[in-house]
Amino acid sequence: MNFAPEQLRTRETVFTIGNGHLGTRGSFEEGYPKAMPATLVHGVYDDVPVIYTELANCPDWLSLLIIVDGENFRLDRGDILHYERQLDLRYGLLSRSVRWRSPNGKTLDLRFERFASLPDRQVLVLRCHITPIDFNGEIEVQSSLNGYPENQGFDHWEQIDQGKLKQGNEQGAWLQVRTRHSQIELGMAAKIAVIGTNSSLHIATPVGYPTLTATYKAIAGQTICIEKFVTLFTSQETAVPVQAAQDKLVGLPDYEALFTAHQQSWDKVWEHSDIEIEGNLKAQLAVRYNLFQLLISASEHNDRVSVSAKTLSGFGYRGHIFWDTEIFILPFFTFTQPAIARSLLTYRYHTLAGARRKALHSKYQGAMFSWESATTGDEMTPRTSISTDPYAETVRIWCRDREIHLSADIVYAIWHYWQATGDDSWLCEYGAEIIFDTALFWISRLEWHVEKERYELCDVIGADEYHEKVDNNAFTNRMVQWHLEKAVAVYDWLQQNFPDRSLELRQKLQLTSEHLQHWQTAIAKIYIPYDDKTELIEQFEGFFQLQDIDLKEYEPRLRSIQAVLGIDETNQRQVLKQPDVLMLLYLMRDTRSGLSCRDILQKNWDYYAPRTDITYGSSLTPAIHAILAANLDKSAEADELFMRAALVDLEDNRGNTEDGIHAASTGGVWQAVVFLGAFNY
Amino acid sequence: MNFAPEQLRTRETVFTIGNGHLGTRGSFEEGYPKAMPATLVHGVYDDVPVIYTELANCPDWLSLLIIVDGENFRLDRGDILHYERQLDLRYGLLSRSVRWRSPNGKTLDLRFERFASLPDRQVLVLRCHITPIDFNGEIEVQSSLNGYPENQGFDHWEQIDQGKLKQGNEQGAWLQVRTRHSQIELGMAAKIAVIGTNSSLHIATPVGYPTLTATYKAIAGQTICIEKFVTLFTSQETAVPVQAAQDKLVGLPDYEALFTAHQQSWDKVWEHSDIEIEGNLKAQLAVRYNLFQLLISASEHNDRVSVSAKTLSGFGYRGHIFWDTEIFILPFFTFTQPAIARSLLTYRYHTLAGARRKALHSKYQGAMFSWESATTGDEMTPRTSISTDPYAETVRIWCRDREIHLSADIVYAIWHYWQATGDDSWLCEYGAEIIFDTALFWISRLEWHVEKERYELCDVIGADEYHEKVDNNAFTNRMVQWHLEKAVAVYDWLQQNFPDRSLELRQKLQLTSEHLQHWQTAIAKIYIPYDDKTELIEQFEGFFQLQDIDLKEYEPRLRSIQAVLGIDETNQRQVLKQPDVLMLLYLMRDTRSGLSCRDILQKNWDYYAPRTDITYGSSLTPAIHAILAANLDKSAEADELFMRAALVDLEDNRGNTEDGIHAASTGGVWQAVVFLGAFNY
Repeated sequence: MNFAPEQLRTRETVFTIGNGHLGTRGSFEEGYPKAMPATLVHGVYDDVPVIYTELANCPDWLSLLIIVDGENFRLDRGDILHYERQLDLRYGLLSRSVRWRSPNGKTLDLRFERFASLPDRQVLVLRCHITPIDFNGEIEVQSSLNGYPENQGFDHWEQIDQGKLKQGNEQGAWLQVRTRHSQIELGMAAKIAVIGTNSSLHIATPVGYPTLTATYKAIAGQTICIEKFVTLFTSQETAVPVQAAQDKLVGLPDYEALFTAHQQSWDKVWEHSDIEIEGNLKAQLAVRYNLFQLLISASEHNDRVSVSAKTLSGFGYRGHIFWDTEIFILPFFTFTQPAIARSLLTYRYHTLAGARRKALHSKYQGAMFSWESATTGDEMTPRTSISTDPYAETVRIWCRDREIHLSADIVYAIWHYWQATGDDSWLCEYGAEIIFDTALFWISRLEWHVEKERYELCDVIGADEYHEKVDNNAFTNRMVQWHLEKAVAVYDWLQQNFPDRSLELRQKLQLTSEHLQHWQTAIAKIYIPYDDKTELIEQFEGFFQLQDIDLKEYEPRLRSIQAVLGIDETNQRQVLKQPDVLMLLYLMRDTRSGLSCRDILQKNWDYYAPRTDITYGSSLTPAIHAILAANLDKSAEADELFMRAALVDLEDNRGNTEDGIHAASTGGVWQAVVFLGAFNY
Repeated sequence: MNFAPEQLRTRETVFTIGNGHLGTRGSFEEGYPKAMPATLVHGVYDDVPVIYTELANCPDWLSLLIIVDGENFRLDRGDILHYERQLDLRYGLLSRSVRWRSPNGKTLDLRFERFASLPDRQVLVLRCHITPIDFNGEIEVQSSLNGYPENQGFDHWEQIDQGKLKQGNEQGAWLQVRTRHSQIELGMAAKIAVIGTNSSLHIATPVGYPTLTATYKAIAGQTICIEKFVTLFTSQETAVPVQAAQDKLVGLPDYEALFTAHQQSWDKVWEHSDIEIEGNLKAQLAVRYNLFQLLISASEHNDRVSVSAKTLSGFGYRGHIFWDTEIFILPFFTFTQPAIARSLLTYRYHTLAGARRKALHSKYQGAMFSWESATTGDEMTPRTSISTDPYAETVRIWCRDREIHLSADIVYAIWHYWQATGDDSWLCEYGAEIIFDTALFWISRLEWHVEKERYELCDVIGADEYHEKVDNNAFTNRMVQWHLEKAVAVYDWLQQNFPDRSLELRQKLQLTSEHLQHWQTAIAKIYIPYDDKTELIEQFEGFFQLQDIDLKEYEPRLRSIQAVLGIDETNQRQVLKQPDVLMLLYLMRDTRSGLSCRDILQKNWDYYAPRTDITYGSSLTPAIHAILAANLDKSAEADELFMRAALVDLEDNRGNTEDGIHAASTGGVWQAVVFLGAFNY
């Protein structure tokens, strides 16, 4: 790729590297005014107004300024004679080769490389080979730890201390900071090495910004290598992170040794997770890119965190965790890296306390998982959107209250994890409690309709978020029914296989045989709006009475239909942000229920697919639609949808890649490859 | 004062220095984890969520780290053997003398001094005399421009560039940044001098944080002086601020010359503004302190800005401008520095466009000034308060819509400025347009009550903000009546003296003789809730029917009554946050209306004073109550109230000085000294 200043932030996302513990956006070492560098570490949340909490951008470790006879290397000055940037997906090595001529006419070859060590998750390394082409002169390399990182303007860190590091021959600097509210401490240390010549080193340690400056005499044609080693620890993994960072730095192997170990770890990972696609290089590249982004988004080492909607690659959705993780992302891990899947599901177990608080605040029983979740499991969805126009009214955000299907989605993921792995001990220790306590929530949330003699769920938002206040959403009601079916099954299984744990849970959750009876009745009596004459499932009661839409009339457009029509008008039209009935049919593909036959899929596809805002609605759509299209033998359409999903970030085809990787889509792409034609007709 | 880490932020406010163009909080050069350093420049606003805009904290120029054989000078480490901090009010020179013993046992004397040049408003200077007492060794002094300042976590700046400055013998560094939204560019440059010994200088220029490091061999008993010179320009005053900053820095006189010029400027200022109090040293000091804070809060050089509720000394109220300026602060300037008063009033003229937009959005005519104002005059009061509790509902902030008396307050200030200065040309060019267009607003805001045959103003908040939705607030209604009286008078005056301008304004504002007639009727028919039997003015209709309160029952307390009782309960009680009827009587002290006799003051004082939350309601109260008490010959009470006002920040007697100087109180203190006994009985 060429240097494209207008795409700076998009490419920062695309070139994100990481190791499942932390991610670093592909920002440039030399810094640019509109750049949005970020290193995000799992679990490092801090308070912020309006949206309550976010992943705090950590001090920037990338900075490496190359100053040639007083002129800074910057791509927006002088001339770029050659430019190439590469991300090696196999080993997560980001590199850049530049031939640059300074405004004063000095020409240099530069080759940057960086990686986040996979086996040593607190170790970050970069290096730069510098070759003067047509001059001799002084080169100064300034390398900092920047303790003033920002989340779109917000700096979460208090400066504690910084200093020089001197131990034996090693010289470096360290930095100690702490999040303002959550009081997470972070320690970093850095050193640089100049390989191939003599150099002098100066270390400045101004508050929050230790800077190492190496100076050497450059000679035309002679390549010198600058290596920068950084360690980063937080108080979530060690008691005195600033000491741990220094200790780790001092004993660090050299660049080659670190990279060799890194390669070995990655080789093992790919052994279980790679997908080969023959005859389509673009699809192969795109699929591997999606798998790479999945693999660097999670690890098995921390079960208090989960994958957020934009992984660790950007500020979109502020590091909050949605149903995206369980429904879109988890299957990849369940089938290729089950230890990671288990860790992600255990995160939900640890956030049960928050889910219970949410249920209590909403006047329900049991555990009601939060639409947007972070450290505690409490509801982190902003209450309102905030306008910059001082005369505009605020807009209430309703998914925090109404998009309740999440609790069933989590149980769906648990069930399939168990089915795939046979991990009985996890189900017994963790999963069962989630399944039962959310089932108790459903019982308190369901409403009995006396006249119609059925259970209903009113005033909800289904999978399709264009409709904000609906009754008996088919997706939600069927998922809840399915959830209760599995709750009954797991209840029986636990009682048979782990009677002690069963007793313990019944006591802890005050779960009685009346509850179990109630689950059974609810399964039998919950209303699913399905018409067996037309074989159409109605998305919710009254959907078919809404004004119809012909999406072609709105082309060409670069915005969602909701942005075009407004929230209220969209609410009144038969237009979907993402699949809802079709999503249900996809998720229920291997159930034996009457809703899983091909005819029904065909009928509902024909109805709902043309009414779905594929291009600018939700990025959750294309991969799922691709699978359904393939199952209906629409292979051209399936291909097009698949590539739309697979390239969503590589080609920025929704225009918002700068906010971070579309995590759900990466998982959807894996599902599309693996579950194509997987329907159980 | 001693070093008191727990009072770090309070004392940063107290030790604010400035020159009317910018202010710098009294933060320490070496930095501390909970410190809140700030340099605020008039007019440098930038967008921020929820509260729309705020004064952007500018890059910190203070940083000066002294490193003795590897140990940083910090008051929270080692031993403090002597400590003294002083603010010279005459010349705005902040100094600190410390004898400090490092953890390794090295003892040093340090004397820091700083000032913001009054004649050269873009020049900031500090110096430190360093004397090793009991050792010889290397001392390193690191001095930075920190381009990552924060407004309580928010960093408003984009980094543009930075670099080394070399011109002749001069070496230094410069920094170029720009606000993210308002796109105000700021350039700074800095140099240091080491006087009294040889030293080496290293300059690092990492992104956003240029750092000059001087190193020298210190010898016991030998005093060395480090001088730091900083220049700061913004694009509001010059086209290329980063160049201006460098040019200014290079040609700068030495410390002594700069300080001499600075002293001469201050001498001239005090000539017109000083107050001498005999026989009470504490009162003398406190009054001069308040005058100093007033004098550094405004200048005559920029009529697009005004004094915000916390001057340039802190983040409280985000640099927004309230009625505090016109009613509390302006009289000091009107009588002692009229050029500054004119400039502050002209700010309101330049924000008329925003006031007109606000009226339009509120469906009124003319100009409705915004309760919180900044650059444009649009309404900057946050719409709601935002809770950090994810389950709490948001609270609507009503003063943005209902606290309408501001437009009359501004006219009150204009009228008195004119009366005091006879500045006819300003009234003609600026003042008249404000007076007329706000009068047009009143006409559209007043409601005619058919049965009672009177004009009313319903659903307002008066001066007392504990009552949020009241009808016919006496303060508001009388101020509006007074405003319309003056509008008629000025209309006549303008027509007589400046007929061309009168015509121009009538055309521009579409002001007709019907309007004038309407003003006359409104003056005659507006309702003022006054009972001539009891001689009591009722604060608003129904106030006397509210549940009464005995404030003594709530003592001791450290919170406002609203915080104790809650918003709704307070609304229902006869308790005032600040004077309302009494404020009106104070403001109307020299009118000939029936409401200005002493009896009425006495009766209303007896009723309202005991019901006013003096201690933790509004800081606007004590000075005004002091004046009224003095006029009622309650001299002990007046003294106590006066000192409470005069010491509000010096003694932090409301517990929130860390947010910034109580600007209205400083102005109130001046009024109390000058207007004591000024009632026109």
